[in-house]
Amino acid sequence: MKTTPIGIAAGFALIFGAIFLGDGWATFFDPASLIMVLGGTASALMVAFSIDELKLGLGGAKQLFSFKPPDLEHYVTLFAELSRTARREGLLALDRQIQQCDDPFMRMGLEMAVDGIEEQEIDDLMRGRIATETARLALTPKFFNAAGTYAPSFGMVGTLIGLIQMMQNLTDPSAIGAGMAVAMITTFYGALLANLVFLPCANKAKAQMNDLLLARDLVRTGVLSIVRGESPSMVEKRLRLFLSEQTEAAPAENDSPLKKAA
Amino acid sequence: MKTTPIGIAAGFALIFGAIFLGDGWATFFDPASLIMVLGGTASALMVAFSIDELKLGLGGAKQLFSFKPPDLEHYVTLFAELSRTARREGLLALDRQIQQCDDPFMRMGLEMAVDGIEEQEIDDLMRGRIATETARLALTPKFFNAAGTYAPSFGMVGTLIGLIQMMQNLTDPSAIGAGMAVAMITTFYGALLANLVFLPCANKAKAQMNDLLLARDLVRTGVLSIVRGESPSMVEKRLRLFLSEQTEAAPAENDSPLKKAA
Amino acid sequence: MKTTPIGIAAGFALIFGAIFLGDGWATFFDPASLIMVLGGTASALMVAFSIDELKLGLGGAKQLFSFKPPDLEHYVTLFAELSRTARREGLLALDRQIQQCDDPFMRMGLEMAVDGIEEQEIDDLMRGRIATETARLALTPKFFNAAGTYAPSFGMVGTLIGLIQMMQNLTDPSAIGAGMAVAMITTFYGALLANLVFLPCANKAKAQMNDLLLARDLVRTGVLSIVRGESPSMVEKRLRLFLSEQTEAAPAENDSPLKKAA
Amino acid sequence: MKTTPIGIAAGFALIFGAIFLGDGWATFFDPASLIMVLGGTASALMVAFSIDELKLGLGGAKQLFSFKPPDLEHYVTLFAELSRTARREGLLALDRQIQQCDDPFMRMGLEMAVDGIEEQEIDDLMRGRIATETARLALTPKFFNAAGTYAPSFGMVGTLIGLIQMMQNLTDPSAIGAGMAVAMITTFYGALLANLVFLPCANKAKAQMNDLLLARDLVRTGVLSIVRGESPSMVEKRLRLFLSEQTEAAPAENDSPLKKAA
Amino acid sequence: MKTTPIGIAAGFALIFGAIFLGDGWATFFDPASLIMVLGGTASALMVAFSIDELKLGLGGAKQLFSFKPPDLEHYVTLFAELSRTARREGLLALDRQIQQCDDPFMRMGLEMAVDGIEEQEIDDLMRGRIATETARLALTPKFFNAAGTYAPSFGMVGTLIGLIQMMQNLTDPSAIGAGMAVAMITTFYGALLANLVFLPCANKAKAQMNDLLLARDLVRTGVLSIVRGESPSMVEKRLRLFLSEQTEAAPAENDSPLKKAA
Repeated sequence: MKTTPIGIAAGFALIFGAIFLGDGWATFFDPASLIMVLGGTASALMVAFSIDELKLGLGGAKQLFSFKPPDLEHYVTLFAELSRTARREGLLALDRQIQQCDDPFMRMGLEMAVDGIEEQEIDDLMRGRIATETARLALTPKFFNAAGTYAPSFGMVGTLIGLIQMMQNLTDPSAIGAGMAVAMITTFYGALLANLVFLPCANKAKAQMNDLLLARDLVRTGVLSIVRGESPSMVEKRLRLFLSEQTEAAPAENDSPLKKAA
Repeated sequence: MKTTPIGIAAGFALIFGAIFLGDGWATFFDPASLIMVLGGTASALMVAFSIDELKLGLGGAKQLFSFKPPDLEHYVTLFAELSRTARREGLLALDRQIQQCDDPFMRMGLEMAVDGIEEQEIDDLMRGRIATETARLALTPKFFNAAGTYAPSFGMVGTLIGLIQMMQNLTDPSAIGAGMAVAMITTFYGALLANLVFLPCANKAKAQMNDLLLARDLVRTGVLSIVRGESPSMVEKRLRLFLSEQTEAAPAENDSPLKKAA
Repeated sequence: MKTTPIGIAAGFALIFGAIFLGDGWATFFDPASLIMVLGGTASALMVAFSIDELKLGLGGAKQLFSFKPPDLEHYVTLFAELSRTARREGLLALDRQIQQCDDPFMRMGLEMAVDGIEEQEIDDLMRGRIATETARLALTPKFFNAAGTYAPSFGMVGTLIGLIQMMQNLTDPSAIGAGMAVAMITTFYGALLANLVFLPCANKAKAQMNDLLLARDLVRTGVLSIVRGESPSMVEKRLRLFLSEQTEAAPAENDSPLKKAA
Repeated sequence: MKTTPIGIAAGFALIFGAIFLGDGWATFFDPASLIMVLGGTASALMVAFSIDELKLGLGGAKQLFSFKPPDLEHYVTLFAELSRTARREGLLALDRQIQQCDDPFMRMGLEMAVDGIEEQEIDDLMRGRIATETARLALTPKFFNAAGTYAPSFGMVGTLIGLIQMMQNLTDPSAIGAGMAVAMITTFYGALLANLVFLPCANKAKAQMNDLLLARDLVRTGVLSIVRGESPSMVEKRLRLFLSEQTEAAPAENDSPLKKAA
Repeated sequence: MKTTPIGIAAGFALIFGAIFLGDGWATFFDPASLIMVLGGTASALMVAFSIDELKLGLGGAKQLFSFKPPDLEHYVTLFAELSRTARREGLLALDRQIQQCDDPFMRMGLEMAVDGIEEQEIDDLMRGRIATETARLALTPKFFNAAGTYAPSFGMVGTLIGLIQMMQNLTDPSAIGAGMAVAMITTFYGALLANLVFLPCANKAKAQMNDLLLARDLVRTGVLSIVRGESPSMVEKRLRLFLSEQTEAAPAENDSPLKKAA
C-alpha cells in the first residue's frame, strides 16, 4: 500500500474541501504567491546544495512513491542455501549462484569470498561501500528537510511583503482586509507544503534509507558468516535476528513474563 | 496506578470545565475544525510513515494504557535459582526449567546456553535480538512525537484559512469577532492535542520502552553469568545492580557521607 | 549559600513589585488561570511519566533546596589513609574502617576489595551501580524540563480560550481590553513559572546530579587504586585530579605561560 | 555549474520582481534599515568570533563561489599508478613522482612513506593533520550559521524600535500604516538575508568541507595501502569505494534484488 | 585586536544612533524595564546555578576581554629544545628547565616524566587533569548561554505585564500607543542583550576554551613524545600538526591538486 501519495492526496482534499465549503475560495488560488514560495524555496535549495546533490536529492524523491522494502526473509533463505552449498562443495561452488544474484552489493561480497580475500578485509571493504552509499542516500531526507525549513520562511517573507505594501495604503479601510488576506496566502502555502509534503517526505525518505541499510547489514553479516564457514542453521539463526518477529514477541510485553516460570 | 488515562481525563476535564464556566462554550465544539486538525495530522503521518510503521506505532499505542513494567525483582530470584541448578546439576539440567519460562527472549538465551554455544556468540545473538526489538519499540514514541509536531501545524493552517476567509469580509464588523473565534479553534485543538495527548504519550512510550530494554539487558547479563558458571550469590549481586535501591541510597545524598568515617 | 530559594524569592519579588507599582494589580491574581496552567501542566506530566517516575522526580525536587555537594577533599584524605593502612597491614585490615564509612557506595566497593574480588569485576559492578543511580537521578531534571515545556503551552491554551470567549462578544468594545487582559494572564503565568522555576530548577538538578556522579567516580577510582596496591602518594595524586584547583591554574590562562620558560 | 551565485541571483530577482510589480516598491529600499540589520549582525559576529576566526570564516566564504570538488577519480588512478611503481621499484622510487604532486597533504604522506616511517605513525600524523584542517574548515559554516541566526534577531530589534517610535504618535492615524511598514522592513531584510544567503551558504560550505575531507581520507587510505605494499588492483578496489557509483547501484534499490537470484 | 569590546560598543552605538535619529528616543531609556529584564535574568541564573558555578562563570567572563590565545608556536619550539636536552643528557636533565616553566600543566607533566612514571600513567593523569579543567572552563559559555535564553523570556514577561496593565484601561485611546510602546521596551532590551552580548559572548567563551584545550593537548602530546624518547625532529613534526598552516594548505583547495601530478 502506497501511503505517500494517498497521504498527500487525502491531506490536500481535506484542506481544500474545507476551503471550498467556506467563503471566498478564489482567494486561496494565487499563482503569484505560490511562485514566490516555491521559487524562493528552490533558490535557497540551489544555494544550499551543489548541482550533483540536487540531482541525487531529487532523484531519490521519485523513490518515495515506488519504493519496495527489501525482502529480508528472502535474503535469509538465500544465505542459508548458499551456506549449504559452501559447506558441501566449498566456497568456489558459489561462483555459479553469484551469476544469478541481482543485488550488486551481495555479488561484490560473495565474489570477494570466492576470491579468497580474508574475512577482516571483506568486512572493511563492505563497510566502506555501505558508508559511501549511506552518504548518497542521506541526501534525499536532507534535501526535503531543507525544503521544509525554507518553505515557511519564504511564506513569511511573502506575507511581510504583502503587509508592507498594504500598510502604506491604510487610508482606504475597505482594502485592508483583502490586502491582509492576500498577504497571508504565502504563509498558508509555506505551512501546508512544509507540513504535508516536505517534512513528512523527509521522514519517509529516512525510513526507506534505514530499510535499505538494514538489508545491506544483513548481507554483510551473511557473507561474513559464509566466509567463516558457519553451519546453515547458525547462518539462518543469525540473519533471522534482523527480522522483527512481531507475533512471537508481543505477548512478552503484555504481561509479566515470569509469572508461571517461577 | 494507570497515570496515562487519569492524566488525559483530568486535563480534558480541567480545560473543558473552565470552558463551560465561561461564555460561549458552544463555539469550542466545532467538529469541522477537529476533523481538519486530526485529518491533516493523520495525512501527514501517512506520508511520514510506511503502512507497517503505522500499524506498529498504533499497535504500541494500546500498550500505553495496559503496560505493566517487567518485574525485575522476580527475574533476579529466578536467575539465582537457575544458577544454583546449573552449578549443582550442570547446564543441561536447565532444560526442564526453560519449558516453564514465559519470556521468549529469556528462553532463547537459555536454550543457547544449554546447546553449548559459546559465551561471545550468545552475547552477539542476544544483542542482535535486542537491537531489532529496539528498532520496533522506538516506532511508538517516534509516531507520537510526529503527531505532536504536526497537530499544532495543522491547527495553524486551519487558523490561517479561517482568517483569510474572514478578512475578505471586513465590511461587516460584527462578524469579525465570531470569525476570528472560529479561526482560532483549530489552533486551540492542535495545541491541546499535542500538549495533553501526543507529546506526553511519546514520553511515556519511550519510558516504557526503556523499562523493557532494561529487563532485556538484565536477562542477557543473567544468561551470560550462568554460561560463565558464576556462583548464585555473584549472579544475584550482579543482577541486583539493575534494580534501583531507593531506600538504601537516599541518605547518602542527604548529608556528607564521610563525616563519621573520618 | 542556598541560591535556589533566594533566586526564586528575588525573581518573584521583582516581578510582583513591578506589578504592584503599576495599575490594576488585582488582575494579576487570578486563581482560576493559575489552576488552569498548573493543572494542565500536572495532567500532562501524569501522562508523560509513570507513577514511580513522578514520585522519584518530585522526591528529587526536595533535594534542590537542601543539597550539600559531596566533600571531595574529604574523600581524597580518606582514601590516602585507607591506602596507607592497606599497604601496611593488608587489604583485610580495611574491614574495621569500612564499618565507620557512611557512604553505602564506598562501603560496597571496599567490601568487594576486602573480599578479594578481582579488579575488573569490582570496576564492572561499581559502574553498573553508578549507571542505575544515574538513571534514577536523571529523572528530576527530566521532570522539571518537561514541566518547563508544558507550562507555557498550557498558558497559551488558556489564552486561546480567553480570546475565543472574548471575541464572540466584540459588540461591547469596553469589554475587549479587560477580556484580553484576563486572557493573557495564563500566558504570563506559564512564562513566569517556566523561566523562573521549572527550567532553572532543571538546570540545577542536573548540576547536582553531576556533582554526585563525580563523587561516585572518585570513589570508584579510589577503590580500584587501593585494590591495585598503589602507593598513598599516588592514590592522592590520582584522586586530587577530580578537584578543580582554581587558585593554581588561573594565572596559566591569563598570560602566555611560556614567556619566561623559553 | 555554479549554483551558489545562480541561486542567490534568482531568489533576489524573484522577490524584488514581485515587489516591483506591487505598490509602493520604494519603501522596500531603506538603506538605514539595511545598515541596522547588517551592522547589528556584523557587531554580534565580532563579539562571537576572534579576529583570526573572522578572517578564516570570511576567507572561506570566497571559496563558496569558486569551489571545485576534488577529482576523486583522478586520485584513484594516481594511487594505482604509484602502487605499481612502489611494487616494481620499491618505495624509494616514488620520490620522483612526489615532486610532481600538487597536493601538499598527499606529498606529506608519501614523503613519510619514502622516509620509512612505520604505518601506525603515518596514520596518526595524517589524522592529526586532518583534524587541524577540519577545525579550520569548519569555521566557514559556523560563521554563516551564526550570521543566519543574528540577522533575523536584529531584524526583529529594528522592527521593535520602529514600532515603539510609531506607537508614541498614534494620534495621527494616517501615519500608523506608514510607520508599521517602515518598522517591518528590518524584519523583511533579516528574514531574506538569513534564508536566501546566510543559512543556505552555511549548508554549502559544510558540504564543500565534507568533499575535501573525503578526499583527505581517500589520500590517507591510499598512502597506507602503498605502505602496506598492497597490489595495485587491491589499492584501486579499496579507493574506488570512496566514489559513489550512481549508475550501478541504482537498480538495486528499485526492485527487490533477489527475485531472480532465488 | 580585541573584538569583544569593539563589537559590543559598535553594536550599541549603531542601535542607539538609529534611536537618537528617530522620534521619541526618551522612551528607550526606561531604568525600571531594564531592572526587570536584568533582575529577572539574574534571579533565574541564581536558581539555575550554584554559588560556586556563578562565581566561576562570572570569573571567566572577565577573560573574554583580556584573553590572549596560547602561543602554540612557542610551545613547539620549547618541546623540540626539551627533547634535544632529554636525548643528549637524559630525562633527569630536564629538571632545571622545568623550574623556568610558567605553565603549571606542562610542569606537572614534565615532573612526572623526570620522576620516571610510566607513559600510560602520565597520559591518564594528564587527561584527568584536562577533564577537570574542561568542566570548569565550560561553565562560562554555559552561563552566557543561559543568560541569552532567560533575557528574552523576561523581556516577554515584562511586555505581558505592560500589555495586561494597558488593556484594562482601553477607554482612553490616546494612552494605548504609549502603553504599548512602554510594554515593548522590555522585549527590546531582552532581544538586544541576548543577541549582542550574551549569546555572542557564549560563543567566544567556548572558542577561547577550545584554544586553551588545544594547547593542553599539545602539551600532553609533547610530554608523551619526550617520555618515549622521540627525536627532536619527530617531536616538532608531531606538534606542528596542532598549528593550522593557512598559507601552505590554501592552494590545495582552490584547484584540483592533481592536475600536474598525473
